[in-house]
Amino acid sequence: MGEPVVALDAMGGDHAPRETVAGAVMACRQMGMRVALVGRPQDVEAELARHGALPPGLEVVAASEVIGMDEEPARAAWRKRDSSIAVGLRLLKEGRAQAFVSAGNTGAVMAAAIMYLGRIRGIERPTLAAVMPVGRPVVLLLDVGANADAKPHYLLQWAQMAAAYMERVWKVERPRVGLLNIGEEEVKGNALAQEAHRLLKGSGLNFVGNVEGKDITRGVADVVVTDGFTGNVVIKTMEGMVELMKDMARQALAGHRRNLLALPLVLPALPFLVAAGAVVAPSVLELLHRTSWREYGAGPLLGVDGLVFVAHGRSDARAIRSALRVAREAARSGMLEALRQLSV
Amino acid sequence: MGEPVVALDAMGGDHAPRETVAGAVMACRQMGMRVALVGRPQDVEAELARHGALPPGLEVVAASEVIGMDEEPARAAWRKRDSSIAVGLRLLKEGRAQAFVSAGNTGAVMAAAIMYLGRIRGIERPTLAAVMPVGRPVVLLLDVGANADAKPHYLLQWAQMAAAYMERVWKVERPRVGLLNIGEEEVKGNALAQEAHRLLKGSGLNFVGNVEGKDITRGVADVVVTDGFTGNVVIKTMEGMVELMKDMARQALAGHRRNLLALPLVLPALPFLVAAGAVVAPSVLELLHRTSWREYGAGPLLGVDGLVFVAHGRSDARAIRSALRVAREAARSGMLEALRQLSV
Repeated sequence: MGEPVVALDAMGGDHAPRETVAGAVMACRQMGMRVALVGRPQDVEAELARHGALPPGLEVVAASEVIGMDEEPARAAWRKRDSSIAVGLRLLKEGRAQAFVSAGNTGAVMAAAIMYLGRIRGIERPTLAAVMPVGRPVVLLLDVGANADAKPHYLLQWAQMAAAYMERVWKVERPRVGLLNIGEEEVKGNALAQEAHRLLKGSGLNFVGNVEGKDITRGVADVVVTDGFTGNVVIKTMEGMVELMKDMARQALAGHRRNLLALPLVLPALPFLVAAGAVVAPSVLELLHRTSWREYGAGPLLGVDGLVFVAHGRSDARAIRSALRVAREAARSGMLEALRQLSV
Repeated sequence: MGEPVVALDAMGGDHAPRETVAGAVMACRQMGMRVALVGRPQDVEAELARHGALPPGLEVVAASEVIGMDEEPARAAWRKRDSSIAVGLRLLKEGRAQAFVSAGNTGAVMAAAIMYLGRIRGIERPTLAAVMPVGRPVVLLLDVGANADAKPHYLLQWAQMAAAYMERVWKVERPRVGLLNIGEEEVKGNALAQEAHRLLKGSGLNFVGNVEGKDITRGVADVVVTDGFTGNVVIKTMEGMVELMKDMARQALAGHRRNLLALPLVLPALPFLVAAGAVVAPSVLELLHRTSWREYGAGPLLGVDGLVFVAHGRSDARAIRSALRVAREAARSGMLEALRQLSV
């Protein structure tokens, strides 16, 4: 099999096309990837010009329209047939690309993916998963917003797809599947969780039982499954906590520096203390930053008949590069074929 | 009105009776409170002996049984009629205490409270709220686990009680009420959230609309209402994030110190650097620690016909003291009478 082509929505994300184009250039130059940059040619080419000679493996595919981050998803997906999202997904459908990555309007990507690619046979509801850099090596949490209301057997299907994904793409053998719940015992939780527990228990998956909110980040399961309402609240709560902690760390360090500067005693050591502050502050902040899963690569949209990845709207070039790498890995892994053959 | 008596479950919590007794002693000595310590006399008195003369305002009320942290809640509440929880709640019922605080088995406190105190007339389901030290001055999140399955009008009743609580106990005028949801628009969310949105909008409360997971910690609402499944997942996710961040901060600081020690260049400044590390590390960790809401006082159980507060199982003496203070404030505020007069 040749090197797969990954189509990238050049226009999607808060920092597009600057960071998307930069990420694609990095992926081609550093990892020998083949990337199809989909977007408005003049915008994409203006950005490409900043990076010198066109890297081998990079091509530009024209799309005249752009779906904004705040546009109503279903309507925009339906109306803008020549958006970068629509054109990118059609490349997938036509076999001209093997995976698609977008940091754009998540709802529009989901709606357009179902519209252009359809669902895998037997899958009732496609689901969006989030990848969190907290396990061995990551934890996949799903659904994170595609289905606010869920039924127990959706959760079963999602768990099956997520396990196949972790096995193929992240090389985790017999991934441990946990059900997000509010207690460890089988009888805990709401009606949905109790019935999903029963289904998962009899599924043949490596089901490790209920997982509580505090356990997600402890990596006790490789896959954590829940409804799209709860999952979305969880990832956004995590995001809010990271922001809060960053603010607090900044304040603590600022206060610390002020105190020290006020002490004549430490004046001789001042340069060293400033240096120490400069070392501590970024390393703590960097670590806090990393826990924001959405900065980390991209989450797969599982259940549509094609490999689609949603990256965070705030993605920078490095995040885009990781997203492209994961998409290539998925294309190489034969994952889509595996999903098609799940007996769900 | 005289000084209210707050009954404290001396036997409840991971560090009981040591920390509960110490917290009660602090509350009496430092804040002039009246506290009824409920528990096994020999255990309570052994702890009290460590604190010198019995502080004025402190009395011991005997309860021969203890409900363990891991006991099945409803069964334990039903069977152990002479547990510290049951005896404490009966003090409330009999008017010998005006509020009850426990850091023990949360489910057992809820079950026993409904059993001994009953519900306020018109309230369908009592609800447990969590206090988070992140707003102005705090954010009340509810339900955090009393009702895994909820109906839209439960959320309305909970919001009404929570608003009355914030107004009376935390002196917040026209508390801003938010609905936890997965998007800002009215039509977002699952069926429960959509219908609850409609009810809250027409409620006369100061309803500020939907609040996303990342906004809870930003204090955009004083009260955030959701079902007990989602609320419980949220507080436990926050707890997990705090643990994760603490680990990361520790690792970052440890790594930092190692690097510096390896540099002969900084040897002359070593004492200062170690001092700097010692200052930065605890201040960051302390701040991280504070965000764990459950360490911060106690959450009210709203809707039972009495003032009941649930403190975190890991509460230390200081946390117990804050819980007792909040309980006294609630008793002084006339909050229970206000809840009884809500036209729900």
